[in-house]
Amino acid sequence: MTDYAKHALDKHKELKGKIAIAPKDTVDSKEKLSTYYTPGVGAVSNYVAEHPDEARDYTWTNNSVAVVSDGSAVLGLGNIGPLGALPVMEGKCMLFKQFGGIDAVPIVLGVHSADEIVAAVKAIAPSFGGINLEDIAAPICFEVEDRLAKELPIPVMHDDQHGTAVVTLAALINACKVTGRQPEDLKIVIAGAGAAGVAITKLLRKYANPRMFVVDSKGIISRDRRDLNESKKELAKITNLSNTSGDLELVLDGADVFIGVSQAGLLTPERAQLMDKDPIIFAMANPNPEIMPDEAKKAGAAVVATGRSDFPNQVNNSLAFPGIFRGALDARVRQITDDHKIAAAEALAALVPNPTPDKIIPGPFDPGILEAVSQSIR
Amino acid sequence: MTDYAKHALDKHKELKGKIAIAPKDTVDSKEKLSTYYTPGVGAVSNYVAEHPDEARDYTWTNNSVAVVSDGSAVLGLGNIGPLGALPVMEGKCMLFKQFGGIDAVPIVLGVHSADEIVAAVKAIAPSFGGINLEDIAAPICFEVEDRLAKELPIPVMHDDQHGTAVVTLAALINACKVTGRQPEDLKIVIAGAGAAGVAITKLLRKYANPRMFVVDSKGIISRDRRDLNESKKELAKITNLSNTSGDLELVLDGADVFIGVSQAGLLTPERAQLMDKDPIIFAMANPNPEIMPDEAKKAGAAVVATGRSDFPNQVNNSLAFPGIFRGALDARVRQITDDHKIAAAEALAALVPNPTPDKIIPGPFDPGILEAVSQSIR
Repeated sequence: MTDYAKHALDKHKELKGKIAIAPKDTVDSKEKLSTYYTPGVGAVSNYVAEHPDEARDYTWTNNSVAVVSDGSAVLGLGNIGPLGALPVMEGKCMLFKQFGGIDAVPIVLGVHSADEIVAAVKAIAPSFGGINLEDIAAPICFEVEDRLAKELPIPVMHDDQHGTAVVTLAALINACKVTGRQPEDLKIVIAGAGAAGVAITKLLRKYANPRMFVVDSKGIISRDRRDLNESKKELAKITNLSNTSGDLELVLDGADVFIGVSQAGLLTPERAQLMDKDPIIFAMANPNPEIMPDEAKKAGAAVVATGRSDFPNQVNNSLAFPGIFRGALDARVRQITDDHKIAAAEALAALVPNPTPDKIIPGPFDPGILEAVSQSIR
Repeated sequence: MTDYAKHALDKHKELKGKIAIAPKDTVDSKEKLSTYYTPGVGAVSNYVAEHPDEARDYTWTNNSVAVVSDGSAVLGLGNIGPLGALPVMEGKCMLFKQFGGIDAVPIVLGVHSADEIVAAVKAIAPSFGGINLEDIAAPICFEVEDRLAKELPIPVMHDDQHGTAVVTLAALINACKVTGRQPEDLKIVIAGAGAAGVAITKLLRKYANPRMFVVDSKGIISRDRRDLNESKKELAKITNLSNTSGDLELVLDGADVFIGVSQAGLLTPERAQLMDKDPIIFAMANPNPEIMPDEAKKAGAAVVATGRSDFPNQVNNSLAFPGIFRGALDARVRQITDDHKIAAAEALAALVPNPTPDKIIPGPFDPGILEAVSQSIR
């Protein structure tokens, strides 16, 4: 076991849970008991029942978000189930509060079909002001998010998709600046067609409609493939317009950008050298990237980003989700649209007005992130 | 609108939610981010997935309870729905923390059938260490609780039933002491056959098997009635062994105890005078009791209790539920049994070693309640 793993285990066992409930007032008198509970609360309940649009003024729904996972795709660990997912969700709830001032509750589900997940989340939705879906495996995550976003009157976002896509777009905007490229002229190879890969592809298309190829473990996604699920079929329609068949190396040839949301070591130095001069390489597999930054640099990369905090340019969802939900809650936004995501990415990119190869996006503790992102959601 | 109602509305609007999420540590460095979130949390998730029995040592499930309601029977307000119920559930969560040190989360449900409620609660159950059901209408509440208690590995308690029953039994134990009666010799009339009435009747039967009659809006519950739902049919089997038909007045004749969980004004002074000499009257309808304490006294009552904080002897669930869940969580009790409830009632009664007509149970802020009740759950 690594040192950080041992430290994390020890620390978690010491805390026995990373979050707690904090009443906003101390109920230490009969008068307060009568105000916050019976009989006083009866007047509040009655009023809210008659004025449901004002529920958020009298309850915590103006600031509460459920962080929901079925534990089917937890970090790089795969399908480890709801209990295994709970430490991650509690951690996410810490970040929601730390970076967004939001009261987030970890909800791990013992059910795994799209129908069951949708039913459970819809059932509990009146308790919250927003739903953050997390670590739900593709392709079920797509159906779950689509249905919930349509059927619920509150914002629903699958962060593995859209948080990642927003920060990736922000990083790409500034990487283009650094390397003198125009987003619409790029040839981009996206490795990985899970939750993040699909969302990144769709958002980049909406943003600049560059030339894109998505590669999964079976090769380039093309309209000729017969093994594609629904979400990959959709990718086959909007990428690879030349309908090229083949492997990663084929499309890396001359590519400006590699975006990896796949697995450690996929982008060997030899493969990286197939790319255009001064390429942009985002190697975001966790915890071990598709190529280590020093190797990528040696292979010629002009800008490298990873998902890790111990290298420059960490593409980290925590730059996006707190501000997106903060903005959505404050502006009473019912759906988080592509326009919102692009606005959030541009706001993040603008926080680094003079990007360099080692600084294309803010670090998680840089000032102004929450304000910039939340104000982009209107 | 009464003054307290106005004050409660103002205070709720000022707070905009009565509870918040409090991280147990501040995530203000990359090191902490790596410990509580990726990559450190991955080791914790992996460990918990492989050792599910230890999940409570690494997550907040050792101390978290969901307070679940579908809003179908909120206080005396009836079926006002999930949003209307939310202020009550948030208030309950305040009390859970204040009186039990427990992190309770309000979960209001947009579904109302027994099947849907059971499915939703089962789905989210891995997130919590216990389930407190609240303000769910009879008779659905009985089926929901029975099924969840059987099917979930964590304690499940419908507080409107059992919290009320425990505190009522505690009060009755001491009321018997005050009036020189033996519980097993009592003739008891219970008015109201909803959640509380059913649970009180069953717990008293288990405790002392006294002579009992339950009366609902149609009269005495008897085996001859053809309009009884399942839970009332059960009451017809275990009460009214003489199978008497008739109205409240018939069974009040010579009764030692009246327990009202019905409606304001039901026990007129004339009816109270039908009871045995020095009767015990618990008039617990909220907010207005079946008979006001001064009238009950005038009609001869030796001991009077109500559900209100502005009279002596408040039969208040907050004496019971925090300690019951505290004990269940600490002792890893999977089911809260009748023996637990009786032990909790005896512990509460023992906190008033020398009861008087005006002090048969502790007040909500008396010392020692949490310790006494929680230690009775083993």
